[in-house]
Amino acid sequence: MPRNLLVAQSGGPTAVINSSVCGVVTEAMRQQRISGIYGAINGILGVLREELVDLREEAPLSIWKLRGTPSAALGSCRYKLRQEDFKRVMEVLAAHDVGYFVYAGGNDSMDTAHKVAMLASEKKYDLKVMGVPKTVDNDLLVTDHCPGYGSVARFNAMAARDSSLDTEAIYTADTVKIIETMGRDTGWITASTALARENADDGPHLIYLPERPFVAENFFEDVQSVYKRLGRVVICVCEGLRDEAGEFVTASKRALDTDSFGHKQLGGVGDYLVNLVASKLKIKARYDKPGTIQRVSGFCMSQVDVEEAYRVGQAAVSKTIEGESDKMLTLVRRDGKEYHCETGLVDLEKVAFGRKPVPDEFINRQSNFVTPEFLEYVRPLIGGSLPEYARLRRKVLEKRLPAYAQA
Amino acid sequence: MPRNLLVAQSGGPTAVINSSVCGVVTEAMRQQRISGIYGAINGILGVLREELVDLREEAPLSIWKLRGTPSAALGSCRYKLRQEDFKRVMEVLAAHDVGYFVYAGGNDSMDTAHKVAMLASEKKYDLKVMGVPKTVDNDLLVTDHCPGYGSVARFNAMAARDSSLDTEAIYTADTVKIIETMGRDTGWITASTALARENADDGPHLIYLPERPFVAENFFEDVQSVYKRLGRVVICVCEGLRDEAGEFVTASKRALDTDSFGHKQLGGVGDYLVNLVASKLKIKARYDKPGTIQRVSGFCMSQVDVEEAYRVGQAAVSKTIEGESDKMLTLVRRDGKEYHCETGLVDLEKVAFGRKPVPDEFINRQSNFVTPEFLEYVRPLIGGSLPEYARLRRKVLEKRLPAYAQA
Repeated sequence: MPRNLLVAQSGGPTAVINSSVCGVVTEAMRQQRISGIYGAINGILGVLREELVDLREEAPLSIWKLRGTPSAALGSCRYKLRQEDFKRVMEVLAAHDVGYFVYAGGNDSMDTAHKVAMLASEKKYDLKVMGVPKTVDNDLLVTDHCPGYGSVARFNAMAARDSSLDTEAIYTADTVKIIETMGRDTGWITASTALARENADDGPHLIYLPERPFVAENFFEDVQSVYKRLGRVVICVCEGLRDEAGEFVTASKRALDTDSFGHKQLGGVGDYLVNLVASKLKIKARYDKPGTIQRVSGFCMSQVDVEEAYRVGQAAVSKTIEGESDKMLTLVRRDGKEYHCETGLVDLEKVAFGRKPVPDEFINRQSNFVTPEFLEYVRPLIGGSLPEYARLRRKVLEKRLPAYAQA
Repeated sequence: MPRNLLVAQSGGPTAVINSSVCGVVTEAMRQQRISGIYGAINGILGVLREELVDLREEAPLSIWKLRGTPSAALGSCRYKLRQEDFKRVMEVLAAHDVGYFVYAGGNDSMDTAHKVAMLASEKKYDLKVMGVPKTVDNDLLVTDHCPGYGSVARFNAMAARDSSLDTEAIYTADTVKIIETMGRDTGWITASTALARENADDGPHLIYLPERPFVAENFFEDVQSVYKRLGRVVICVCEGLRDEAGEFVTASKRALDTDSFGHKQLGGVGDYLVNLVASKLKIKARYDKPGTIQRVSGFCMSQVDVEEAYRVGQAAVSKTIEGESDKMLTLVRRDGKEYHCETGLVDLEKVAFGRKPVPDEFINRQSNFVTPEFLEYVRPLIGGSLPEYARLRRKVLEKRLPAYAQA
């Protein structure tokens, strides 16, 4: 008997989580064993509230256009199921004869999916559960990388390049530029700004990741050293940067705000460092903080990311039909010259709690930049080179006058 | 006798000021009366320092690619000429037989250009001076709009749309989103975020411009009213927002920093309002501050802007050859259904100091959004519609269970 499939989106939106839903729906339509294709509004909350929509009623073009639509078209949530909620989840799934449940999200969502799978098994309710990896943070275990990351990396590489050119052009003002990127616990996003650097003196010149404690003295030395050499410094920092005591480096009291998973709302390190540079080094500084724009930028998607997000969505459906359950899709990078990833599977419980930090071999010895190995890892994920810009040769005219003392 | 042309870039970089230089160089190459085509490095500072480059030595492809390269390829500056500097400027121009001087910049730069023109005339030095309008702030007088504005408007429309979708998707957290845009004295940039709104409930819901004093009580009412209706609020604010006493609304002490023209470095209103919303309305909020990324975004140029910047560059050269001097190029919008701008001329001294605020008819009565007239004005400048996104119909499934109290 065909049964119904339910798909939901969870956690922070990304540029390509809708592409995964497109993959899920497209594949589900091909499967004879799937009858209804449902979406839950606002993730697991939509299940609790029984707010489900019929995705077969959508225009085919709308479904297809999800590949180019950022954010979460079904709505997302940050909600940690309480013990008493699980019973309700099972009731709603049963009331709508859901036999296949696909949940796209990060590690918290994989935990939720795993618990639902376990409960179904305990209650002898026939349910296949598949997790679809999604997080700009790129910190899920096992998978080579996470859908969503390639696009945020492309955005930040572009933004860091443009912002660096801005600082380079007008070096007589704002000579230190801080770019604050997202990244709750890991520095993957911040690290991607290194792709902006095409020539030795290009920005960013310094990159600080939360994988290394922030030491103010080293920071001052780093900044002054670049400043002396170039007269300008572009610094990319992660919002999740912590000092040696493990405290967030931030100007903001709001870092104490927490969501229902206990995660702190971050942001403020850029502002903090601008003040530090101004007060200690007496160099004028400013900061850019693209904030949530970076994670959902529809104008800067990586086409590799869009395609991989689509494929893990498709595979989530085909694998459940093959009988797999309680697993998350992964991306497995094949060895070889040309970049290629295949999809794989991993038990949900193996990814539900752990986090993959940027490994040591991707961070330089001075803890202020990434290594060539990281660039090799990240480059294929952003979906092609950045657009080529002109660089003038600037052939200097011979001087005909004595130097002017005042300028 | 053919004489030499000198072009320089000044003030904050934009996405298309290089396109103007491309127009200048391309047109100068066609003119028999121009021999050397020189660029000054870092604007008027490069003149003082006699740091000039030979633009005929650049590869033709590099010159052409300037049309797609943001920031300022010759370098820019923020430097106000002192009385004693003018003599030096004339000496350098004379030493290199510069007969044509093209200066791209905002109103401060037009002031500089005008003073150079006056001094040349006084000294009987044959010099034609032309100003090329350039400012993301869009606040130059007389011209319909300024090259640079269409691209920053496109960036902000895209960013506000994406960021609004982000807030809409995850309305169970971060229910108030503040987007802080640039704009020192005028709200043109902030106003452009209104283009993000395609349907009545889309963000941004509120837009605050520096043309109206910020009144906290009205702000609270506005925010609560939208919040009650939609459960989320996206607010775009200008970094130059001021209160009724004329003081900047900002959390930052750095607003007291000033450049050599006496302009304050702004930024901080987003942070300030987040705290205000959290403390007074008890609603969680966060802010995005794309900062300098917005003004030089190479990935989001308006092609109309690129083309117009190119054309004012070209016209600056052809008009000097026709004998015009001490003037700035303008864009003159033709009446009619189809958008079209021609180039015009205005005396430099008429644009050197004034600023064009967003006019009353472009701001709504409640001072919290723009009018349809503004949208009509700005829409053609961003170079075509924003990419189309999918909107799901969300046909809701009939409920089969009683409501769940806890969610």
